[in-house]
Amino acid sequence: MKKNMKAEIISIGDELLIGQTVNTNASWIGAELSKIGFSITRCVAIPDSKEDILNALSAAKGKVEIALITGGLGPTSDDITKSVLCEFFGTRLVSNQVVLEMITTMMTRRNFQMNENNRRQADVPENCRVLLNETGTAPGMWFEKGGTIFVSMPGVPPEMKHIMTERVLPELKTRFVSQAIVHKNIMTYGMPEAKLAGVLAVFESELPPTVKLAYLPSYGIIKLRLTGKGESFEAVRDSVSVQAGKLCKIIGDLVYGEDEETMEMAVGRLLKEKKATMCTAESCTGGSIAHLVTTVPGSSAYYKGSVIAYSNEVKIEHLGVPAGLIEMNGAVSREVAEAMAKGSRKAFSASFSVAVTGIAGPDGGSEEKPAGTVWISVDSENGTVSRNFTFGTDRIVNILRFSIAALNMLRQEILRAK
Amino acid sequence: MKKNMKAEIISIGDELLIGQTVNTNASWIGAELSKIGFSITRCVAIPDSKEDILNALSAAKGKVEIALITGGLGPTSDDITKSVLCEFFGTRLVSNQVVLEMITTMMTRRNFQMNENNRRQADVPENCRVLLNETGTAPGMWFEKGGTIFVSMPGVPPEMKHIMTERVLPELKTRFVSQAIVHKNIMTYGMPEAKLAGVLAVFESELPPTVKLAYLPSYGIIKLRLTGKGESFEAVRDSVSVQAGKLCKIIGDLVYGEDEETMEMAVGRLLKEKKATMCTAESCTGGSIAHLVTTVPGSSAYYKGSVIAYSNEVKIEHLGVPAGLIEMNGAVSREVAEAMAKGSRKAFSASFSVAVTGIAGPDGGSEEKPAGTVWISVDSENGTVSRNFTFGTDRIVNILRFSIAALNMLRQEILRAK
Repeated sequence: MKKNMKAEIISIGDELLIGQTVNTNASWIGAELSKIGFSITRCVAIPDSKEDILNALSAAKGKVEIALITGGLGPTSDDITKSVLCEFFGTRLVSNQVVLEMITTMMTRRNFQMNENNRRQADVPENCRVLLNETGTAPGMWFEKGGTIFVSMPGVPPEMKHIMTERVLPELKTRFVSQAIVHKNIMTYGMPEAKLAGVLAVFESELPPTVKLAYLPSYGIIKLRLTGKGESFEAVRDSVSVQAGKLCKIIGDLVYGEDEETMEMAVGRLLKEKKATMCTAESCTGGSIAHLVTTVPGSSAYYKGSVIAYSNEVKIEHLGVPAGLIEMNGAVSREVAEAMAKGSRKAFSASFSVAVTGIAGPDGGSEEKPAGTVWISVDSENGTVSRNFTFGTDRIVNILRFSIAALNMLRQEILRAK
Repeated sequence: MKKNMKAEIISIGDELLIGQTVNTNASWIGAELSKIGFSITRCVAIPDSKEDILNALSAAKGKVEIALITGGLGPTSDDITKSVLCEFFGTRLVSNQVVLEMITTMMTRRNFQMNENNRRQADVPENCRVLLNETGTAPGMWFEKGGTIFVSMPGVPPEMKHIMTERVLPELKTRFVSQAIVHKNIMTYGMPEAKLAGVLAVFESELPPTVKLAYLPSYGIIKLRLTGKGESFEAVRDSVSVQAGKLCKIIGDLVYGEDEETMEMAVGRLLKEKKATMCTAESCTGGSIAHLVTTVPGSSAYYKGSVIAYSNEVKIEHLGVPAGLIEMNGAVSREVAEAMAKGSRKAFSASFSVAVTGIAGPDGGSEEKPAGTVWISVDSENGTVSRNFTFGTDRIVNILRFSIAALNMLRQEILRAK
């Protein structure tokens, strides 16, 4: 394997500079290239301007193994990337027959008439290798100059990802990655990063030199990524697998899944395994838990529904929470959370229910129950468990953190069930 | 006003390059600087490496009026921005008494002990102007060299935004923006960009040269931004206001709000004005509408709740949809959407209800009703209105587009009500 393979990401488009579009393409490409062992030396976003594009291409030439370029391949007059590439690589645009046929087929299927703009999408620099794009009209283009590979791709995220996944990453792996690289993510919830790092200090210090551990935190979830490198794929895979096993033994209680599994995916997986169903009763999360659960394709197999009880009347009428209970304990209390969970499980005839009542903020808190306070209750055949948490004052963050905490409690109860 | 003021954004941090963190700071800064008339020449993200930081600072020097730098100001060993700034500006770190006192107060209030890391946060390069940060421990720093202003800020988004809003943008306006700049956003929904551009072609061609129109689309919502520039603030404001009035006359039906108002904020505003309440009945959107509505602070004043009916039984039992109606028309039908809307309005005693039933995809569609098909119904004292839409096959995008379409129909019915 070549040591220290370097890559640069060049994102073209005025919309990135004026803040209209967040540059998620650069993050995605950075993550994918990191995974196969490239160091990203920089990401640069520049306007649709000939001078800036030429400067960026020149700056990358000879400095990095590969420059990945997105954007500026559309059919309108502000999309100039192709003509600038021609200037940089000393060539001219020619129509590519295969691409033209693909576009024609695509247009025919959508009942659109081919026009001049569509036909222009099939024009590519004569000395490039075309990277076919089955998901859109702009193909990718592969150039090599001065020891650097330049790949130009459309800025539309699904099209870029398609070309990267199907065409670019496989070739980069073949050409640059003679070493085997194996990743394994262990998804954890329930312990802050600093504390987790303490718990795992000895484990980390005893890792073989070929395996590294990284912490990737997000809203209470911490992804632990083990990366192994070595000569033989089998040996690296086994080594990473052994370390993952050790890791899970140390922090088993915190582990909810592997690789890219979200908390809502883990809940769905367990429910399917147990042939069980769930429902929700949400107050302060206002549908966010239901929304997370139902973003998972196929969730209709186990998700029954929810009552979102934003007012006390709804809690009383639709979840059967006794009015006196709210009066005595307040709507944000263990007692009300438990009554909501029991009421919704009964109403929806589900195996599991999770109920949330709290104060998302920024207003509505008190000294005793500040914004960020939440009671979560899970009800099932095994009984009812309840916990309270106190997070911060940011409404949007609280709604998300409450939701993930609730899904994790639900997950633990599903695991406990026979 | 200086012509063609240029700015560059430099984002420091390994996490940006390996794709762990999406660079939302650069978008936000780009948007804010664009609003006051700066051209962003490039955004560059670089690792926490001395050489890369020095190169980026050198590249900006003399080329732009201002370079905005974020990241690398934390207390841990990989945060090296401050020492590199010292090298670049030929100075040394000194402890700043005001910052040290602010940090001490902050720590005392949180019941934390001051440690060496906290104290180091008060060290700043001797020749910088300190930009106080009331929201965190790392202050901002202002330097000038070779005709370029360099501002270094923490990468934590709320802290960066605080320093930008309170310290940097006001000074930039005073020093660079002698011209008055006035923005006015008109928020529209219901017409695609290409068609809207056709409808507004004459209006745009007749704009005075001092007023520009920009289209900023996102999930069916198109923000039309009018930007006026001129000598006198009052004259520019009046001119933009006149054009906004003309614009709203042409496309009045499509306009749902102004400036940064989201669809869910617009719905909330109208409900408050009419002292009315709302509820939702969601099938395929699975809580997404409720979630959007309840992200708005104060939404408990008008939002009663929801039944999320992911299964037919829930539609029948909790929303009173007749079983025969589902059998006869299918769950995704005008009839079922209307029954859901009526049932939920009754169940929650709300002034308005909105119901959604559809196929979010990617699976579950048929030839007749492909993924992306949705029926939406709004019920109120004025009766029931229903519409169907067909969007694409991306589940997450569909859920969002269905939700916004539903909120827009609700908005129109609230407007129609007495």
